[in-house]
Amino acid sequence: MTYRRIVLAARPDAAPGPEHFRLETAPLPMPGEGQFLARTIWLSLDPYMRGRMSAAKSYAKPVEIGETMQGGCVADVIASRHPGFAVGDVVLAPMGWASHGLSDGVGVVKLDPSIAPLSTALGVLGMPGLTAWVGLNDIAAAHPGETIVVSAATGAVGSLVGQLAKRKGMKVIGLAGGAEKCAYAMAELGYDICLDHRAENLTALIADAAPQGIDIYFENVAGKSLEATLPNLKTHARIALCGMIAWYSGAENPPPAPLIWGAILRQRLSVRGFIIFDHYDRLPDFLAEVAPLVQSGAITYRESIAEGLENAPAAFLSLLRGGNFGKQLVRVGPDPA
Amino acid sequence: MTYRRIVLAARPDAAPGPEHFRLETAPLPMPGEGQFLARTIWLSLDPYMRGRMSAAKSYAKPVEIGETMQGGCVADVIASRHPGFAVGDVVLAPMGWASHGLSDGVGVVKLDPSIAPLSTALGVLGMPGLTAWVGLNDIAAAHPGETIVVSAATGAVGSLVGQLAKRKGMKVIGLAGGAEKCAYAMAELGYDICLDHRAENLTALIADAAPQGIDIYFENVAGKSLEATLPNLKTHARIALCGMIAWYSGAENPPPAPLIWGAILRQRLSVRGFIIFDHYDRLPDFLAEVAPLVQSGAITYRESIAEGLENAPAAFLSLLRGGNFGKQLVRVGPDPA
Repeated sequence: MTYRRIVLAARPDAAPGPEHFRLETAPLPMPGEGQFLARTIWLSLDPYMRGRMSAAKSYAKPVEIGETMQGGCVADVIASRHPGFAVGDVVLAPMGWASHGLSDGVGVVKLDPSIAPLSTALGVLGMPGLTAWVGLNDIAAAHPGETIVVSAATGAVGSLVGQLAKRKGMKVIGLAGGAEKCAYAMAELGYDICLDHRAENLTALIADAAPQGIDIYFENVAGKSLEATLPNLKTHARIALCGMIAWYSGAENPPPAPLIWGAILRQRLSVRGFIIFDHYDRLPDFLAEVAPLVQSGAITYRESIAEGLENAPAAFLSLLRGGNFGKQLVRVGPDPA
Repeated sequence: MTYRRIVLAARPDAAPGPEHFRLETAPLPMPGEGQFLARTIWLSLDPYMRGRMSAAKSYAKPVEIGETMQGGCVADVIASRHPGFAVGDVVLAPMGWASHGLSDGVGVVKLDPSIAPLSTALGVLGMPGLTAWVGLNDIAAAHPGETIVVSAATGAVGSLVGQLAKRKGMKVIGLAGGAEKCAYAMAELGYDICLDHRAENLTALIADAAPQGIDIYFENVAGKSLEATLPNLKTHARIALCGMIAWYSGAENPPPAPLIWGAILRQRLSVRGFIIFDHYDRLPDFLAEVAPLVQSGAITYRESIAEGLENAPAAFLSLLRGGNFGKQLVRVGPDPA
């Protein structure tokens, strides 16, 4: 009996490539006392994983060379010597990029498959969804009638920010990569307008879309999305900063720091960085509000699914370039029988 | 009868020089109905004036070429057709860089010369003092026991930030230009330590001074002070940003924007830009607290005085290079008889 895992083969200096990952096969471990063995069904791919590939000091320990890449999964328990978990339990667990794994139960949550499709525990009802909800409500303190710009508007986080902002009675402007995503944002997610972040005249397009200026910028991207939004922010606008995917692997021709510092000063901006792992105390309130909306279909979501663990690296590299359309998942194993 | 004024002669592209100013003599105007004529005693020189020399969009209208440089002054009324102001009144007024000026009373405050030396209305009890007090209390929400780094630690703003923070029971670390200012900061202003912002290993020196990290960075300077402080900020630290004098005229080798954006994200910082002109509603509370402390000598202050309006440009250019030591003033005329 063996299992498969993808380990960090080397640290990227700039944009990562396939050479930084390695697929390995290893003997399937058996659970010791107080452990369970689970089989991965869904693996979540998220931009934060780029940070874990680097040795630079950050908010979390990096993955070491040769270690299994970290990641959240939906899995089911196939053997257990843990009193809290039984064979057949379906769990949300930090199994990493692996077909199977042992757990002592730390950081593991049992899922109720009747609430929503299991994959939503990694997306709209999981970490990205909580990020959207906390960012909009707690970090940006969004109010009805305000105007918000959401970068990565159709991504796992942005797609929920946009829908929640619209439900709140805000004017919602999306920035996304390409016409197809922009059309989806307006037709399905309720954005008032969605602009292609590659447009040459993006600053002017945002100004046209919001002549009175922007109250809130929900920042997932940085790069041109940031540069084009900054001059359109109202005096005293707020920025909720939870990602900067355009700059995770270094930046080509990044703007100089004084551009940003000067905007914060002259426009009296409030900028708050946040990492969702600080805010899990808000999960019950988030689920109480959003789970029924997903169940009823009032909130929609979209998934990009890669088939098979072996395709996780390619899917992750595509995600870093904006190749995903909605929440990026890897189907590692079949649903429970 | 004539008066003297200094006008903007040309807009600087980078660091300004004497060629961007011109001293003019003009006929002394007489007050019309609803106006008064005042004679300048003290002119305040402040870093924000660099912004007014540029045409770039900012929070205030720029000075036009040929117009008198803007600035706050202490002055006395020498002729009046305004019902609210009588000859002999001493006022705080936006007279600009001029020996005399007309006013319709807008933005003018009568001063009580018995409270403190008149010049303090431009410094420790004026705009810079209010900036320090609002920044520390309202913007940074400073608390006893926290550790703060104050850039431009002996400047008009920083010198009060340091003293107020110390009185609040904080650990107070200053950054200032050179050994003399640092010695003054520790001996007279109560800083626990003051570091030369030109030190090669400033990041390490701050780390040594605050091994537990920094809760609040009071930002007047940007440049190396910012770069060295950022890595020493605690998770969830706050930055009160009211100036960036090192970058007002462009920056040599500025850091790239991702350095700052990444720090805000990973360290979950809150950065708030503020401009004191938004906060004048706080002036009474500020004066109620700080004026008695200045009167009793519990709060001290230091002034750099240039003699004569004609020396205002040189003093201002020196201020932009950190050549002032304390609040920079120009003695334009003698005190009232």
